[in-house]
Amino acid sequence: MWRLRSIGYNRILGSSGRNVDIKVYMQNMGAAAREAARAINRAGTRQKNDALHAIGDEIRARRDELMLENAKDLAAGREKGLNDALLDRLKFTPAGFDAMVEGLAQVAALNDPVGEISELSYRPSGIQVGRMRTPLGVIGIIYESRPNVTVDAASLCLKSGNATILRGGSEAIHSNRALAKCITTGIAAAGLPETVVQLVMMTDREAVGELITMDEYVDVIVPRGGKGLIDRITRESTIPVIKHLDGICHVYIDDEADRQKAIDIAFNAKCQRYAVCNAMESLLVASPIANDVLPELAGLYVKEGVQLRGCDETVRILSNVCKVETATEEDWRTEYLGPVLSVKVVDGIAEAIEHINTYGSKHTDTIVTENYTRGRRFLKDVDSSSVLVNASPRLADGFEYGLGAEIGISTNKLHARGPVGLEGLTSQKFVVFGDGQIRQ
Amino acid sequence: MWRLRSIGYNRILGSSGRNVDIKVYMQNMGAAAREAARAINRAGTRQKNDALHAIGDEIRARRDELMLENAKDLAAGREKGLNDALLDRLKFTPAGFDAMVEGLAQVAALNDPVGEISELSYRPSGIQVGRMRTPLGVIGIIYESRPNVTVDAASLCLKSGNATILRGGSEAIHSNRALAKCITTGIAAAGLPETVVQLVMMTDREAVGELITMDEYVDVIVPRGGKGLIDRITRESTIPVIKHLDGICHVYIDDEADRQKAIDIAFNAKCQRYAVCNAMESLLVASPIANDVLPELAGLYVKEGVQLRGCDETVRILSNVCKVETATEEDWRTEYLGPVLSVKVVDGIAEAIEHINTYGSKHTDTIVTENYTRGRRFLKDVDSSSVLVNASPRLADGFEYGLGAEIGISTNKLHARGPVGLEGLTSQKFVVFGDGQIRQ
Repeated sequence: MWRLRSIGYNRILGSSGRNVDIKVYMQNMGAAAREAARAINRAGTRQKNDALHAIGDEIRARRDELMLENAKDLAAGREKGLNDALLDRLKFTPAGFDAMVEGLAQVAALNDPVGEISELSYRPSGIQVGRMRTPLGVIGIIYESRPNVTVDAASLCLKSGNATILRGGSEAIHSNRALAKCITTGIAAAGLPETVVQLVMMTDREAVGELITMDEYVDVIVPRGGKGLIDRITRESTIPVIKHLDGICHVYIDDEADRQKAIDIAFNAKCQRYAVCNAMESLLVASPIANDVLPELAGLYVKEGVQLRGCDETVRILSNVCKVETATEEDWRTEYLGPVLSVKVVDGIAEAIEHINTYGSKHTDTIVTENYTRGRRFLKDVDSSSVLVNASPRLADGFEYGLGAEIGISTNKLHARGPVGLEGLTSQKFVVFGDGQIRQ
Repeated sequence: MWRLRSIGYNRILGSSGRNVDIKVYMQNMGAAAREAARAINRAGTRQKNDALHAIGDEIRARRDELMLENAKDLAAGREKGLNDALLDRLKFTPAGFDAMVEGLAQVAALNDPVGEISELSYRPSGIQVGRMRTPLGVIGIIYESRPNVTVDAASLCLKSGNATILRGGSEAIHSNRALAKCITTGIAAAGLPETVVQLVMMTDREAVGELITMDEYVDVIVPRGGKGLIDRITRESTIPVIKHLDGICHVYIDDEADRQKAIDIAFNAKCQRYAVCNAMESLLVASPIANDVLPELAGLYVKEGVQLRGCDETVRILSNVCKVETATEEDWRTEYLGPVLSVKVVDGIAEAIEHINTYGSKHTDTIVTENYTRGRRFLKDVDSSSVLVNASPRLADGFEYGLGAEIGISTNKLHARGPVGLEGLTSQKFVVFGDGQIRQ
């Protein structure tokens, strides 16, 4: 049986004046997080790693209990009529369970970014100036059904020296509470304050509203979930948000592309997985090779059950290959997140770049070309968080990029852009070593 | 005679439905800036430097005209009853004029941050991943009386590859228009679109309201001015703001400080200049040496006309030296920006850090100590944008830090923190060089 950890919770359950109590509950949590942030900022690397390992031990030891709590969420979800996809995301599988524990060990193995000093150099005045990496402070994570985010997010925030307030979806509340208990137990075992990671026990929407406006206590908000959630958070938050909105990703096949690379990349970009933000949603093909590559690619897509929507030229080229709907203006702006692909034949690189910068979502875009100058131009001129030459956009994530882990992919331009790992959860301050220098 | 450059302006002057027209005017400007941002992003280093030099030439050539326009502002200001300090800031002096032209040459001489690729390394999949520095896009600068900001801000934004919308104070409108004309002439001479830098010709407050909510067209807002302005912008902007609020900076004199360094730094920190954000507002002294250093320091301050407000212990120690008011709780939270200083005797470094993190504004703080461990601790635990050991906080600025120039000092934690130079006006995207790699 899990004990309800946070002070204000029981009082709130028995209360009638709900809103006031939610505010008090969240403010208390915020104040505790601000206090805990100082402790975790001061904590050494070993202590943080000890906490991560202890959390893993706790999760392993309580596996049966966690499965039981998860079963409660699943039963409630079935009762509420959640669809199979949602229930799937909610469910602890043995593999998912192992991955969660393994993830903790991986984060423990990453370099500690906190306190790292870079660019230290002498100035004419004799002072030595550098930049020291520091935690951001308090991070609010708001996420939907998948309970493993509770552990993933908490571990990354902890390693980067931040205090965390977690707000998971109501449909995962039993699993999340159980995981939060493992986390706080592990943290306490390492001698750190339990309040370094706090879970919002209330499932009311007002709790989110309070979390994203407690400027005094929260330094950054990271929403993880569907567009609806992220839109709402971004609109209503008075705190900076590290977010990604749409992933309308492109592959542009240049007429000087290596034919086989182009087909492999364009196929992988769409079909390796559909419901991910770095999957291709629009394929652009240079007109001189469209007749050559499109029919073969279309055949591959159709075999996978991918529906094509093309420009007039695409429809014409593929008229004998498969059924292609005519793409509307709306299609170029759509993140399908499923087995649908829009296809456009373009004159060349200039039109491709123009199309991407106009209709894309500044997320991840690829050019396939053997032409040196065009590769350079694409890299510079495409205004997206990841720009790739001759590689599948599906490779744009924290693990593939060597960040070790990722808390999300940011389409922000300020602060963290692209996959966000430990470094994206930190800031840099200037540090100065002097010998008594004064301003002349 | 300066021609009014922006399309919508004349129409607006003659219009009655003012708000709608302001909106249209600003939206047109935003759309033009978004378009110009692409051109300046593509521009090479030489072209940008040519533009900066051409602007300098233009300003030099039109010196007399500029002085005339500036005189109009001064006359209007006097009529409106502006105080001497404001009139002073408004006025083009020969030295200020030269500094403005020299500043352009200095920015031209700085390294171009755009396109710089760092951390390029191979990953197990064979892709090579790095980060490329990119412009932010469109920057909105909102500033008060000093017209030289028009040129300083425009030059930094231009060099960092951004399009700029400038909104200066109404009291400097003639000077700003004249300078803007020099800027656009210089930009055009280098073959870039004039709209890379645009000045809002309207002095209505609604124009600012529109500017800070045009998310579609503006990527970041940089307010330069007093706390009132910055507060308002931060509260109302829906666009990320790079800002600094208060500069409540501290010097902590540790009991293991070198006595002479402590006195030099504490004196310089307060008296080198008063109305600047990195001047010391609170002095903290470790109790074991308070009896030794405070009387000498107090004598120096009093000689400069600095008024002291102290804790009880300070008042006691200085009872035979000078008049010291008792500091209130409010004093520890106050940015005097003038010849006033609050002084507190603390037990030691722990109390000093606690005081700074509680009452400070996370701007700039100094420890004076010869103790290695305490220096390290202060650097790590003080949560400010600049933390210094044995150096005056007055050294915390872009020039002293080697950034070449600065657009301001940021107390944000996300993105740019501390003095913001060219780099703070850029972002980084991931770039990937592959050989056909796909996601397994």
